[in-house]
Amino acid sequence: MRSQPLAAALALTLAAGAAHADEGMWMPSQLPQLQAQLAAAGFRGDPAALANLNRAPLAAVVSLGGCTASFVSAQGLIVTNHHCAMGAIQLNSTPERNLIRDGFIADSQAQEVSAGAAARVWVTQGFDRITDRILAGAHGKTGRAYFDAVDAAKKAAVAECEQDAGHRCSVADMYYGSEFYLIKQLELKDIRLVYAPPVSIGNYGDEIDNFVWPRHVGDFSFYRAYVGKDGKPAAFSKDNVPYQPPAWLTVSTAPVRQGDFAMVAGYPGTTYRHRTASEFAHQIDWLLPNRVEMYDGLIHTIEAAAGSDAGKQVLYASTLASYKNTLKRAQGELEGLRRSDAIRVRRGDEAAMLAWLGKQSDANAKLTDIRALQAQLDAGDATGARDFLLPFLRPGMLGAAVQLQRLALERGKPDAQRDTGYQQRDEAMIEGGLKQLQRRYDPVVEKAILRFALARYFTLPVAQRVPEFDTVFGKDMAEATARVDALYAGTHLGDEATRLAAMHMDAAQLAASTDSLLRAAATLQPALLRLENEAKQRAGELLRLRPAYMQALIAYRQSQGRAVYPDANSTLRVSFGRVSTLSPRDGVDYRALTTVAGIVEKNTGVVPFDAPKPLLNAIARGDFGSTADPELKTQTVDFLTNLDTTGGNSGSPVLDAQGRLIGLNFDSNWEAVSASWMYDPRYKRAIHVDMRYLRWLLAKVYPAPRLLQEMQLPAE
Amino acid sequence: MRSQPLAAALALTLAAGAAHADEGMWMPSQLPQLQAQLAAAGFRGDPAALANLNRAPLAAVVSLGGCTASFVSAQGLIVTNHHCAMGAIQLNSTPERNLIRDGFIADSQAQEVSAGAAARVWVTQGFDRITDRILAGAHGKTGRAYFDAVDAAKKAAVAECEQDAGHRCSVADMYYGSEFYLIKQLELKDIRLVYAPPVSIGNYGDEIDNFVWPRHVGDFSFYRAYVGKDGKPAAFSKDNVPYQPPAWLTVSTAPVRQGDFAMVAGYPGTTYRHRTASEFAHQIDWLLPNRVEMYDGLIHTIEAAAGSDAGKQVLYASTLASYKNTLKRAQGELEGLRRSDAIRVRRGDEAAMLAWLGKQSDANAKLTDIRALQAQLDAGDATGARDFLLPFLRPGMLGAAVQLQRLALERGKPDAQRDTGYQQRDEAMIEGGLKQLQRRYDPVVEKAILRFALARYFTLPVAQRVPEFDTVFGKDMAEATARVDALYAGTHLGDEATRLAAMHMDAAQLAASTDSLLRAAATLQPALLRLENEAKQRAGELLRLRPAYMQALIAYRQSQGRAVYPDANSTLRVSFGRVSTLSPRDGVDYRALTTVAGIVEKNTGVVPFDAPKPLLNAIARGDFGSTADPELKTQTVDFLTNLDTTGGNSGSPVLDAQGRLIGLNFDSNWEAVSASWMYDPRYKRAIHVDMRYLRWLLAKVYPAPRLLQEMQLPAE
Repeated sequence: MRSQPLAAALALTLAAGAAHADEGMWMPSQLPQLQAQLAAAGFRGDPAALANLNRAPLAAVVSLGGCTASFVSAQGLIVTNHHCAMGAIQLNSTPERNLIRDGFIADSQAQEVSAGAAARVWVTQGFDRITDRILAGAHGKTGRAYFDAVDAAKKAAVAECEQDAGHRCSVADMYYGSEFYLIKQLELKDIRLVYAPPVSIGNYGDEIDNFVWPRHVGDFSFYRAYVGKDGKPAAFSKDNVPYQPPAWLTVSTAPVRQGDFAMVAGYPGTTYRHRTASEFAHQIDWLLPNRVEMYDGLIHTIEAAAGSDAGKQVLYASTLASYKNTLKRAQGELEGLRRSDAIRVRRGDEAAMLAWLGKQSDANAKLTDIRALQAQLDAGDATGARDFLLPFLRPGMLGAAVQLQRLALERGKPDAQRDTGYQQRDEAMIEGGLKQLQRRYDPVVEKAILRFALARYFTLPVAQRVPEFDTVFGKDMAEATARVDALYAGTHLGDEATRLAAMHMDAAQLAASTDSLLRAAATLQPALLRLENEAKQRAGELLRLRPAYMQALIAYRQSQGRAVYPDANSTLRVSFGRVSTLSPRDGVDYRALTTVAGIVEKNTGVVPFDAPKPLLNAIARGDFGSTADPELKTQTVDFLTNLDTTGGNSGSPVLDAQGRLIGLNFDSNWEAVSASWMYDPRYKRAIHVDMRYLRWLLAKVYPAPRLLQEMQLPAE
Repeated sequence: MRSQPLAAALALTLAAGAAHADEGMWMPSQLPQLQAQLAAAGFRGDPAALANLNRAPLAAVVSLGGCTASFVSAQGLIVTNHHCAMGAIQLNSTPERNLIRDGFIADSQAQEVSAGAAARVWVTQGFDRITDRILAGAHGKTGRAYFDAVDAAKKAAVAECEQDAGHRCSVADMYYGSEFYLIKQLELKDIRLVYAPPVSIGNYGDEIDNFVWPRHVGDFSFYRAYVGKDGKPAAFSKDNVPYQPPAWLTVSTAPVRQGDFAMVAGYPGTTYRHRTASEFAHQIDWLLPNRVEMYDGLIHTIEAAAGSDAGKQVLYASTLASYKNTLKRAQGELEGLRRSDAIRVRRGDEAAMLAWLGKQSDANAKLTDIRALQAQLDAGDATGARDFLLPFLRPGMLGAAVQLQRLALERGKPDAQRDTGYQQRDEAMIEGGLKQLQRRYDPVVEKAILRFALARYFTLPVAQRVPEFDTVFGKDMAEATARVDALYAGTHLGDEATRLAAMHMDAAQLAASTDSLLRAAATLQPALLRLENEAKQRAGELLRLRPAYMQALIAYRQSQGRAVYPDANSTLRVSFGRVSTLSPRDGVDYRALTTVAGIVEKNTGVVPFDAPKPLLNAIARGDFGSTADPELKTQTVDFLTNLDTTGGNSGSPVLDAQGRLIGLNFDSNWEAVSASWMYDPRYKRAIHVDMRYLRWLLAKVYPAPRLLQEMQLPAE
């Protein structure tokens, strides 16, 4: 049974007008089976060619790690979002030459600057099903043993694959434990910044316009990938040469119109669309409200603790921004899932699936597994409040102490047996994190955070309290307050050298340390390992049991005439749909395309609506040349589609019916934040930079004739 | 020259597609001359009949003073906005029977309750040009003498007109001193509340949705006017009988569609459309920014002074709400006028007018007057900062002291010679204000307000300081702070009885008073009279000179094929246009009609989005009967037109091409706040309750079959 790929078993034709026709983050290998739907949507190419990882367009679509990008020339020119290249832009900025404010144009390859030693471009070369290999050792096992068997097989497959120098490999779990794919990616390490518009174009509207449509952002930048003279990946060297990709995208010169076919290829991060109804209910009724409350409290706690102290404010600016983003996303997700009545819809769908399944001849084994799955999920609810809270009890420096103790423990094992995240390949990242902490830590603020979390810990039912935590923090807030003061009075981990030195101590040395935070971490470690073991036991059981649910769901969808994509997991996916308007609420219609008129309307001269003078002048001149929209008679800026995207799709190329590049994905609308759980066709939209705006900026506003020529585009 | 009515001289045909085709608040007498435009817009009736004050529809359109309403049955049934009837609803509410929260339905005439002794309905019966009579004594005069001659003639005309018992008269200045009309209105005094929906329907969204489109408000209520058995106006008596109006409106049962002809009749308050370019510049560059800064400062001052004291907060709640509204309006006006580039547009228009005028044979006299007008306006700029500031130097109780001194002074004259606002007919209103002050005054807060205004006074150039103010408040803030403390320590006007007793003292008695505020007011009075005299001199000159400007503008518009309406002045006007969508900004389209779906979307269960259960249930049932929109297949709520309205048009009937009632005007969109100065056809819209929503509520949600029957409407 497991030897037939599920996706292949799903060569389904979508019934015309079926619900959610545009939902789906398809694996490339599924595309040939979606031929009818692609054609019906307006795709003019060959789905089999579209699925080919070695040809355009997919061979041109690369990962930056958290962002997507694409090759747009034979000489390794890469286009992605401005916000994806922000690190590289910042790195190359100085007070004298502020690339963030002023933008950057390299007039020749010699002027292209390094995006930094950590910058990477990953080109997917292999996407192979290895389900049998991964599950071979797991059959017949349960719980932690099942988990460990899968984990060991994954590590072995990755290690073997990475023998091929210059590659990075991973094993992707598709359909929740049903299938496993070995992903092999070429790892390019010499990445250079080629072009960036001023931030007042690349991030026009900033946080105020975040998640907002209509939008007016030129969120794009250009990179170029370089390799050694041997054509192999190499670290930055001035002797390196441009990488010659196997394929690159053609930039469209045709207009984009409402209703046009569009598709997006990229590396979407995580979705939860195929979770069970009880997981939907847990998310909406429990987790999201708790997350909102927790992050709201943390934000207030940090702001109050930092007070008017500018130094503390700087140290926590990034943490606060991240927490505020988490809070906003949680609020949006909650609002959207309630608006879509997601619990009721998912419950109804699951009940119908189980009713349908009950009538099948082979239902018994699956139903038994599904009931066991539900029991496991219910069991998780019992410790949910504790499991949600404990990570907040080891913030910043205490978290570093915990990590140091754990690293020392793992280092005592052979590398292959070390826990994921603590292998040799992970140590550079751990060290980077320990260094970064220097710019994000203040003991006064961290103590406030810890007190805030502890106050909630002491409201847990006594049975859920963890003895080792009680040993460290005491039995109530009065004790905890004194203990927390003592913990931070007795540590030297705030000193970067001390912290980094501790990274190279072994378990015995760390055990002998008198540092208060390291001692506390040592006390907590058995508890954390015990809880982790419990979590892995449950994860192993879920991994073993979920496939029955997924198979039932897939079979049920098949009976409805619908194919099923695996939930997003940062692997290469393709979605298709249309350039679309949006009616976000009664009486309001958003158009599918915005124009430069909106830049002028929003412009206040004050950040973040401080459109640069050259742009305002160019708009006033109205000289839009070949990039003007023939119907609107002006320059478009951004456009909206109903493409199925999520975080990780930033920078993804948006392609037309011929596979030509028409846009760069860069955001979702506010109403679509909840799409990580549920695709609601009424509200799910994705926001893209119109390539015509990019071309106009390169032609007329911040000219880069060299790049237009390289992309074989009109000079104006 | 003055004997030809200007409007009659303007029997112009609008060029098809002329700019601002839908701009215009026309006097009824102008409508026959607009026959072609009315027909082109889609009006199906006879413009001559439309202009007739004694026939439907205009005979049915009445003023409530600040609001408009209309008769909708032969038995004096009146429909207006909920917010226009709020005082009556509040008056009849008790903790046990909360009509605000629960609404009100009188099941019979006997259950109809008084709207209060102060409630009035004014029915316009006469609208006669008396320009010659008003200006007869002014010819050859200038300045204050011109002002006084006009003022005396107006008072005499009003006094003569009001000899007809049961009537209220006024003289309306049209085209800025060019023409004067005697308005005669029947004054109905026994007004009763018949029907009001719950405030959660009548004011759904409250301040949050104020100025907002798309809107979802059932902003309507019903009154009935009663008269004595002799058919004459009479104060409330249970023996009174329903007033039988000369005409009433027919409520439409046809759908409202985007693009349909619509017109509105009502009593718009004040507009400034025909002011000079320099007045536009003064408003936008000087007055509005200063108003924004002043009210923002006042709001912060009051909030800080009231602090967390609940008593003070209550006393200033109404003042704060009013100041916040003033601030919001000023901000909206400024934003809109800048968006419309109003200074540049008006300057260009005026320059073109003057250039055109210069070529006319009779230009010389007019140009001389216009130049004199501009010189007067420039002269006003010199004392603009002082004149703006001084009213803020006599807040609340000090203002009452100033008013008491002035009243005593005016009482020493024959009534006809008393200043406007201090005649016998005004004394009841003065007394009401003095009483009301008890609920709006706290010395600590008032001193803070006074200090805030004084701090600005001391920044004026010394030449603009006023000696009497310096005498009272001292030469700098240090002195002023002590003086203000002393002023409020030494007054008993905070006591209502003392204050009302002072109203009945004569000038000699008041002069002998030792009350510190009354003494300060006595010191200030010569300055205020002197400044008032200067203001009246300038007003007289402007009144004398503006007609030249208006005549030039009217003639110039005539040359462009455009008619000119007089700026709004609370007299009966008619506007016509269309049911319209709105594109408020790039990428956004607002539909012309909203539906009950929006009520559900906005509903949070929390004020002001707490739609009542019976409404939500009725929406869920979807039983819309004859009031459902045939195309949208649901119940509409509100709709949008491009009709030319302003404050005072609240409650105005919106009529279709046959003159049938299709909506009640109740608000403008935010983008149209600046329309008091400039009508920008891109943004000027008016917001109306759809009569079908009203009918549905009366039929199915809060039933009032008696009223539907009385209006000869279907029962469901």
